[in-house]
Amino acid sequence: MPVLVMKFGGTSVATLDRIKRAAKRVGLEVAKGYDVIVIVSAMSGKTNELVGWVNETSPLYDAREYDAVVSSGENVTAGLMALTLQEMGVPARSWQGWQVPVKTTDAHANARIEEIPPENITAKFGEGMKVAVVAGFQGISPEGRITTLGRGGSDTTAVAFAAAFEAERCDIYTDVDGVYTTDPRISSKARKLHKISFEEMLELASLGAKVLQTRSVELAMRYKVKLRVLSSFEEPSDEAGTLVCDEEESMENRPVSGIAYSRDEAKMTLISVADRPGIAAAIFGPLSDAGVNVDMIIQNISEEGRTDMTFSCPTDQVLRAQKALNEAKANGDINFHDLVADTDVCKVSAVGIGMRSQSGVAAKMFKTLSDEGINIKVIATSEIKISVLIDRKYLELAVQSLHDAFELEKAT
Amino acid sequence: MPVLVMKFGGTSVATLDRIKRAAKRVGLEVAKGYDVIVIVSAMSGKTNELVGWVNETSPLYDAREYDAVVSSGENVTAGLMALTLQEMGVPARSWQGWQVPVKTTDAHANARIEEIPPENITAKFGEGMKVAVVAGFQGISPEGRITTLGRGGSDTTAVAFAAAFEAERCDIYTDVDGVYTTDPRISSKARKLHKISFEEMLELASLGAKVLQTRSVELAMRYKVKLRVLSSFEEPSDEAGTLVCDEEESMENRPVSGIAYSRDEAKMTLISVADRPGIAAAIFGPLSDAGVNVDMIIQNISEEGRTDMTFSCPTDQVLRAQKALNEAKANGDINFHDLVADTDVCKVSAVGIGMRSQSGVAAKMFKTLSDEGINIKVIATSEIKISVLIDRKYLELAVQSLHDAFELEKAT
Repeated sequence: MPVLVMKFGGTSVATLDRIKRAAKRVGLEVAKGYDVIVIVSAMSGKTNELVGWVNETSPLYDAREYDAVVSSGENVTAGLMALTLQEMGVPARSWQGWQVPVKTTDAHANARIEEIPPENITAKFGEGMKVAVVAGFQGISPEGRITTLGRGGSDTTAVAFAAAFEAERCDIYTDVDGVYTTDPRISSKARKLHKISFEEMLELASLGAKVLQTRSVELAMRYKVKLRVLSSFEEPSDEAGTLVCDEEESMENRPVSGIAYSRDEAKMTLISVADRPGIAAAIFGPLSDAGVNVDMIIQNISEEGRTDMTFSCPTDQVLRAQKALNEAKANGDINFHDLVADTDVCKVSAVGIGMRSQSGVAAKMFKTLSDEGINIKVIATSEIKISVLIDRKYLELAVQSLHDAFELEKAT
Repeated sequence: MPVLVMKFGGTSVATLDRIKRAAKRVGLEVAKGYDVIVIVSAMSGKTNELVGWVNETSPLYDAREYDAVVSSGENVTAGLMALTLQEMGVPARSWQGWQVPVKTTDAHANARIEEIPPENITAKFGEGMKVAVVAGFQGISPEGRITTLGRGGSDTTAVAFAAAFEAERCDIYTDVDGVYTTDPRISSKARKLHKISFEEMLELASLGAKVLQTRSVELAMRYKVKLRVLSSFEEPSDEAGTLVCDEEESMENRPVSGIAYSRDEAKMTLISVADRPGIAAAIFGPLSDAGVNVDMIIQNISEEGRTDMTFSCPTDQVLRAQKALNEAKANGDINFHDLVADTDVCKVSAVGIGMRSQSGVAAKMFKTLSDEGINIKVIATSEIKISVLIDRKYLELAVQSLHDAFELEKAT
């Protein structure tokens, strides 16, 4: 039998009624002839309640006990989902992470899946079980203790099962109905994409479009798992959701697929840094040690042995960055005249795999912004992305005008 | 290091504050030099919530999924208790049933513990861990699925651990401060017992004094585990609680230790049964098959081949008993003239290991009741118990007058 993986997030299993609704969708796929692996999150709110208890009990908690506590929500949903399916006449049973087993590293609270031996579940499919309901977000460490995968980890669980069982597809049911050309709250012309490539999805995810956990997309890309994002609150249809898949089978023939943004960025500039080999390492080493997530980096032309170095990071990490750099200066590790922080900027990005083969995308982006009187402060590009830092007040205007300029409201 | 087992029930771990309070008691024992195994229940109300969800989802639920769901409450408390102890500076970690492992039968929702290999926990004690916090009420079946032990199962978990680790004592913390000579709500003269024998405790438990699960007392008796029942809401002291132990070390030198009662009893009489060999089996076989818990049985003298047969059972099983007996009559398996049910009776019992060696207890009991004008309807005795069925309206009067007659308010 072909295997299908279906993952239901917390809002999709928030009540017994919603679990029933989700179970009906599972039943539809079983009726089509699939053996189904269902990955469930905890009922929404439950994990937060457990995390709250742990934090209140022990602010600097032992992550192994944190994992033992917070993993319990998924176990409840898994059992209830299995019972709901049985009640519908569908042979089902629940599996906790350690029972499968979902083998992970011992990096508690943020473990990575190392292996999912498919034998146990496959044997049950062979005995007539149609649905394996697996508690998401959790696994077992080499020492036999319970681990969790970090927030959003159930997406990763789902993709890892799809890879391990060579599933035909991995359907991620959530409370949005797919991936859009941009945030519909900012542009009313935002259009749902029918397909998107892994690479684009990764860029969108890392740019703040919180539909899928980044790690789950990376994993899907590596193992060529067809991912579909869809809403559990819409009626089932073949047109539902967005398919995240390989470039070959995905692409709309256009240079830009979506406009993403990140609102809370800061631009920091080290003025007149003494330029020498190894200076970049001397600057970004301490920032990394201080936990600053540096995004864009620009080095201006060096004049007379001195240069300006600009980088961006999230607004709430500015104080940490300043502290780290001033300490490095005090230690004599680096030398600069001044450190200037601009905390009123945002990042807007055009993402599209078509950029690889079509030129003029950057020029069109810059002209569009210029026509609106928006000054570009920093530019960074990757093979499939152009990002700019601009004043935060222009965020909505920039997103809307770029969405218009690349005609993203039109289906190809 | 000597090992101590401490069990905290649901009300003793109902909130984070109460968990902290319980953890402090554990800390006191660690300070005395014990390696401590703490058995925890779910926070009070949690298990009922989970059971409610299971029942709503699937009234005739798969007990394996029931177990997977309802066992999760204990896991949460175990992790939180371990974190609380760590926060106090006490080296502790949590264990779920399958991690120990607590090996049980596969009788889901009502499993029995078969074995608790002590190696894993003992090894951790050897590495400096002072407290193993174990989720009560749960274990793992031979097939690797989660089992639960039935309501009150955490008491049994505690005693089983005490036996497996040859613990010096097993302290059961609950919301009552010990075992009383009778129900303090009925007699204000009820006195807390300092010691009681296993046998007496078993009789009291089975007679409805709900301090300890019957099975846990049986287990403690078999493995000679010293059990202490005490309140987690009282200040710690050497006089706290009631010690349940072997007869040799326990007994107050008196014939009766306590007066127990059971309010909702029914007396059923089969009038003029055709008496023949095997008639008792013909009557009580169908009752057992129908799930009727028959307690006392009295057969009157047989006259001319016919006899009256009287038995007692809980009030809410009367309809079932009538149905079973009338069907057996219709089938020709038994023959009787009439079936009379008296549903307005109760059972009052005097329990005491001293009865074995002191005569006159029954006579004194009957005279006391007679002096109060209370008519005895059925009498049944065991080696350490005399029970009578009387009209329910005399329940309080009977308990109080017997408590007075045997001078139970006085310590020996």
